[in-house]
Amino acid sequence: MTRLHDDPATFSEDALAGFLDAHAGRVVGVPGGVVRARATREGKVAVVVGGGSGHYPAFCGVVGPGYADGAVVGNVFTSPSATEAAAVSRAAHGGGGVLLTTGNYAGDVLNFGLAVEHLRAEGVDARYVAVTDDVASAGGDEVPKRRGIAGDVTVFKCASAAAEEGLDLDGVEEAARRANDRTRSLGVAFTGCTLPGADAPLFTVPEGTMSVGLGIHGEPGVSDEDMPTAAELAARLVDGVLAEAPEDLGEGSRRVAAVLNGLGTVKYEELFVLWRTVARLLREAGLEVVEPEVGELVTSLDMGGVSLTLMWLDEDLERWWRAPADSPAYRKGSTDALEQGPERSAEEAAAASAPPPEEASRGSEESRALVPDVVRGAEAVVAEMAGAEDELGRIDAVAGDGDHGRGMVRGSRAALDAAREAQEQGRGTGGAVRAAGAAWADRAGGTSGVLWGAALTAVGARLGDEARPGAADVVDAVDAGMEVLLRLGGASVGDKTMLDAIEPFRTALRERVEAGDDLATAWDVAATSAEEAATATADLRPRVGRARPLAERSLGTPDAGATSFGMVARTLAGVLRG
Amino acid sequence: MTRLHDDPATFSEDALAGFLDAHAGRVVGVPGGVVRARATREGKVAVVVGGGSGHYPAFCGVVGPGYADGAVVGNVFTSPSATEAAAVSRAAHGGGGVLLTTGNYAGDVLNFGLAVEHLRAEGVDARYVAVTDDVASAGGDEVPKRRGIAGDVTVFKCASAAAEEGLDLDGVEEAARRANDRTRSLGVAFTGCTLPGADAPLFTVPEGTMSVGLGIHGEPGVSDEDMPTAAELAARLVDGVLAEAPEDLGEGSRRVAAVLNGLGTVKYEELFVLWRTVARLLREAGLEVVEPEVGELVTSLDMGGVSLTLMWLDEDLERWWRAPADSPAYRKGSTDALEQGPERSAEEAAAASAPPPEEASRGSEESRALVPDVVRGAEAVVAEMAGAEDELGRIDAVAGDGDHGRGMVRGSRAALDAAREAQEQGRGTGGAVRAAGAAWADRAGGTSGVLWGAALTAVGARLGDEARPGAADVVDAVDAGMEVLLRLGGASVGDKTMLDAIEPFRTALRERVEAGDDLATAWDVAATSAEEAATATADLRPRVGRARPLAERSLGTPDAGATSFGMVARTLAGVLRG
Repeated sequence: MTRLHDDPATFSEDALAGFLDAHAGRVVGVPGGVVRARATREGKVAVVVGGGSGHYPAFCGVVGPGYADGAVVGNVFTSPSATEAAAVSRAAHGGGGVLLTTGNYAGDVLNFGLAVEHLRAEGVDARYVAVTDDVASAGGDEVPKRRGIAGDVTVFKCASAAAEEGLDLDGVEEAARRANDRTRSLGVAFTGCTLPGADAPLFTVPEGTMSVGLGIHGEPGVSDEDMPTAAELAARLVDGVLAEAPEDLGEGSRRVAAVLNGLGTVKYEELFVLWRTVARLLREAGLEVVEPEVGELVTSLDMGGVSLTLMWLDEDLERWWRAPADSPAYRKGSTDALEQGPERSAEEAAAASAPPPEEASRGSEESRALVPDVVRGAEAVVAEMAGAEDELGRIDAVAGDGDHGRGMVRGSRAALDAAREAQEQGRGTGGAVRAAGAAWADRAGGTSGVLWGAALTAVGARLGDEARPGAADVVDAVDAGMEVLLRLGGASVGDKTMLDAIEPFRTALRERVEAGDDLATAWDVAATSAEEAATATADLRPRVGRARPLAERSLGTPDAGATSFGMVARTLAGVLRG
Repeated sequence: MTRLHDDPATFSEDALAGFLDAHAGRVVGVPGGVVRARATREGKVAVVVGGGSGHYPAFCGVVGPGYADGAVVGNVFTSPSATEAAAVSRAAHGGGGVLLTTGNYAGDVLNFGLAVEHLRAEGVDARYVAVTDDVASAGGDEVPKRRGIAGDVTVFKCASAAAEEGLDLDGVEEAARRANDRTRSLGVAFTGCTLPGADAPLFTVPEGTMSVGLGIHGEPGVSDEDMPTAAELAARLVDGVLAEAPEDLGEGSRRVAAVLNGLGTVKYEELFVLWRTVARLLREAGLEVVEPEVGELVTSLDMGGVSLTLMWLDEDLERWWRAPADSPAYRKGSTDALEQGPERSAEEAAAASAPPPEEASRGSEESRALVPDVVRGAEAVVAEMAGAEDELGRIDAVAGDGDHGRGMVRGSRAALDAAREAQEQGRGTGGAVRAAGAAWADRAGGTSGVLWGAALTAVGARLGDEARPGAADVVDAVDAGMEVLLRLGGASVGDKTMLDAIEPFRTALRERVEAGDDLATAWDVAATSAEEAATATADLRPRVGRARPLAERSLGTPDAGATSFGMVARTLAGVLRG
C-alpha cells in the first residue's frame, strides 16, 4: 500500500515539489505542472503531456530535450483543469504551436480539449490527441472509446521526436495520430493500488487470480483468470495484442517497438522473466522488436500488474522511437546535438504561463442593446435553478454524485455576476455571454460546469460584439455551442446526457426560424422539444458498451443534465416572450 | 509478493536471459554474468560489480560506458561463486587490471576475494573492495563489519568514473575506498519481500510499524517504531545518517551526493514526498546536495522500504559522481566522448571469460620427492573424515546447517584424487597441494570448502615446485594459508571459527621449528595446541557484535570448523611421524 505521505490532501503537490527539487536544472515548476528548464527553442512545436498523477514516471518524468516540453500534473488519478493545461502549454510554447496529448479519459479529454479552445482564442495554434491503445477497454469497432495506458509512451515519444526534428504542428499532430493508430496494449492486474491516506485499496483482485484488461484506475476488465506462469502470461499478452493488430499497414509492418510495463509492484526481475518469453513469441510471430523498454514507465501507485504495448513501425516511427531523449526518468542516446532555447528561472517560466490580460473591449451600440436581455435571462435562470437545486440533486444521485443541482446554482450565479459586470463595462452581446461562460466554467465545479462554460463561450464568440444578433445568428450560435460539447464531452447523442436534450432543441429552433417564426416563438417550440427529450432519457435503453456502465444503473430516471437544460431552455423562452 | 516466474529454481537465469534480450547491443552475457557489448578499451581498469540477484537495477543494470565493465550475477540473494566472479572479470579485463567490488556480505567477500586470488595467479592484477555504508549494521568502531546497501551506487559509480578517466588500478582502488569511506546509509523497512515461488514473505514487519536498519535480506535492524509521516521519516533518516558522518573531512565536505532509494514497493511519488523534506533538512544542516538520485537503484524484490545514502564529496568524488554514464538502467549526460573498445559477440566474450589452460608443469626432482607424502597425508585425512562425518555434522547443526562433516568428506576425497593425479603427472610438492586445494574448493561445497581450498592453494603456492621444502618452508606455507583465510573469511581469531584452532597451531609450529625441533615433533606439539583450542571454542563467551548472532546459540558446543582442523592436524602429525 501507499504508506509515505504527510497530509494526504496535498500528496500530489508535495510529490511535485520533491520532484522539482530532485531534478532542479532539468525542469522547472509552473502553475499546473512542469516545463523544461531550458525553454523550447524558437519555432519548435511544443509537446505537452499529462493527466492525473500517481503514474510516475508518467507524466512529469518525461519532460526534457527529445521528449516532452511540458507536463500538466493533476491530483492522483484526477485530470488537471483546463486552466492548468493552458498554463503549462503557454510556458512550454516556443512559437511553433502546441500539441497536447493524454490518455483517453473523459476528464482529460474535456480539460485538455478546453485548454486547446483557450489557447486558440489567444492566438496560439493548439491541437489535442488522445491515446487509445488499451484493446481491452472497447472493441475494434469502437477504437475511439479505448482508454490510454502504456501506449502513452510510444505516442508521446514519437510526437516529441517529430517536434524535435522540426516538423510543424500539422506534422507533429499527424505523427501522434499515426503512432496512436499503430499502438496496441493489453494489461493485467493482480492487486489494486491504495490512494495516499486510504486504509484499503481502491479496488481488489481475488488472490490467486488475475484480471485481464483491468484499467489502471480499477476500470472493469474483460475476464478474471487463474494466476498463470510467466510463460502463460506472456502468451496471453502477446496473443491479445496481436489479435488487435492494426490493419492495412504498409511496408515495414513487421518491425515493432515494444514496452513491457510494470504497474508498480511487479518488479524488474519478474518483468525480465516475462520478457524472455514475450520476446520469443514475438519473434515466432515474425516480428522484429526494435529497442524494447522493459521496466516501470506508466505506473499506478503500488498496483500489481503489467502491460504489453506494441507499436507497428514505419520508417518515420522507427526513427522517432530510436531518437535520443534526456528527461528525468527516460534517457536514450545523446541529446548533445539537439538545439534548445535559453535557460530560464521558475519565475520566468511562471510568467510565461499566465494568460494574456483580458481586454474588456466595448461592443458596438447595436451589440450592446441586447445585453440587458442577457442579464435578464441570467437572472431568470438563477431563480429557476435555486428552486430546482434539490430535485436536480436527487436525479443526479441515481447515477452520479448528486452535485448537479449545486453546480447549476453556482454556475448560473457566477454567470449572472459576470454578465452584469460586462454590462457595466459596456461590452457587446457576445462579450457578455463569453464572460458569463468563463465565470460558469471557473466557479461551478464538476464536468457539467466546464461544459456549460465552454458552450456559452462558443455561443458568445459566434454572437460577436458588432452587429445586433438576429434569429439566424442565435441559431448558428446554439449550433456552435453544441459543436463544442460534442468535441469536448466525449459523448454522443443517445448516451443519456444533456446532448439528448440539446440536439432536438437546436434542430427545432433551426427548423422554426428557417420556416419564418420569430425567435421567441421558435424558442418556445424548441424548449418543448428539449423538455420532452429530457424526460425521454428515462426510457432510453441502457447502452451496452463498456464506456458508460453507469447508464444501466440510472434506467428509469431522466438524465440530470438533460433535465436542467430543458429547464433553462423553458426559462429563457419566458424571458424572450418578455 | 513476487508472482511472475516459470520454474522458481531458474528464476535468476530466466531473468538474466530476459535482461540480455531486452538490452542486446548494450550488454552481452558470459558465464556467471554480464559484460559490456563493446569491450573495455585497451589499458583501462575494468570495474566488476556484483552480488546476488533480486536487487535490479543492481547489479547488471549498471554495466555500460562510464559505469561498470561487468556484473557478476548470483542467484536471488545468494553470492555468485568465485569461479563466476573470475570468469566475468576475465571477460571484462582490458589489460589494465580489475577492481571487483560488492556490498559487504560474507559470501561475496569470500567468493570475490577468492576470485582475486585466481586472477592474480593468472597474472591479472585484481583488487577487491567491499562497500560498508549501512550505519545500522554495526557501530562506528566496527565499520568493516557494516553491510553494504545503496551505498553501492555511489562507490561503484565513482570507481567506474575514475577508471574511465584513465586512473591505474591503484588509483581506481583508492577511489573506491575513498568513496566508501565517505558514504553512509540508513534504511527502514515496512514489509518483507517474497522469494520467487515462496508462499510467504522471507520476513515480516508488523503492520503499522517500521523497522529501522533492517537489512535488505531481512538481517536484524536496530529498532521497531510506529509508522511515521513522511516528514518524520525524513528527519529520522537524515539524523541517523548525519550522526554517523565521516570525521576528518577536508575542504568541500559540505557538499554531498545523495541517493534516496526505494526498495521495491515504495513508489516514486512517495519517494518524492519524502525527498521534499530530506532535501530541506540537508540544506538546514548546511549541506549542499549535488545531483541527487531519487528512485529505485538497489531494490530487494518487492520489499517495502527506503534508504537514504549520502557521500561527502571532495573535488574528485564530485567529478566522478557527475560524470556521464550509459547503462541499461542508469544514464547520465553524454558518453559520446568516452573511448570504448571494439564490439564483440557473446561468443567472443565467453571465450575471453575462460580460465587459461592448466599447465600441469612437472616439478623438480627434489620437489617431486615429497609428493608421495602429500598423497599419504591426504589418504589419512580421508579416512579420518569418513569416521568423523557424523560427529562433525552433529556439532555443526547446533549453530549451522549441519553439513560440515559432509563437506569435509567430499573435500578431502576430491583433494586426494587430485593429489594422486598430480603425482602421476610428475608435479612438484606445491603443484600437488595446489591441485588438491583447487579440487577441494570446487567439489566440497559450502563456505568451509571454499576456505579449505583457498588455504591449500596458498600453501601450495608457497611450497613451490623447485626446491624440496624444509621445516621453515612449511611454517611459512602454513602462515600463507592462514593469511588467505583472514583475508577471505571475514572473521577474526576469537570469532569461534576454524581460525581459533589454526592461530595457536601456527604459532606453536613456528616456535618449535625456530627452537630447533624437527618438523614431525613441532607439528605434533602444534596439533595438540589446535585440538585444545578447538575444544575451548565451546567455552568462549559469545560475541555481542551484531555480526555473529549465531554464536550465542552455539554456546557450550565447540566450533565444527575448529574441531575438524584439530582432527586434520592430528592426523597429519601421525603421517609425519611415519
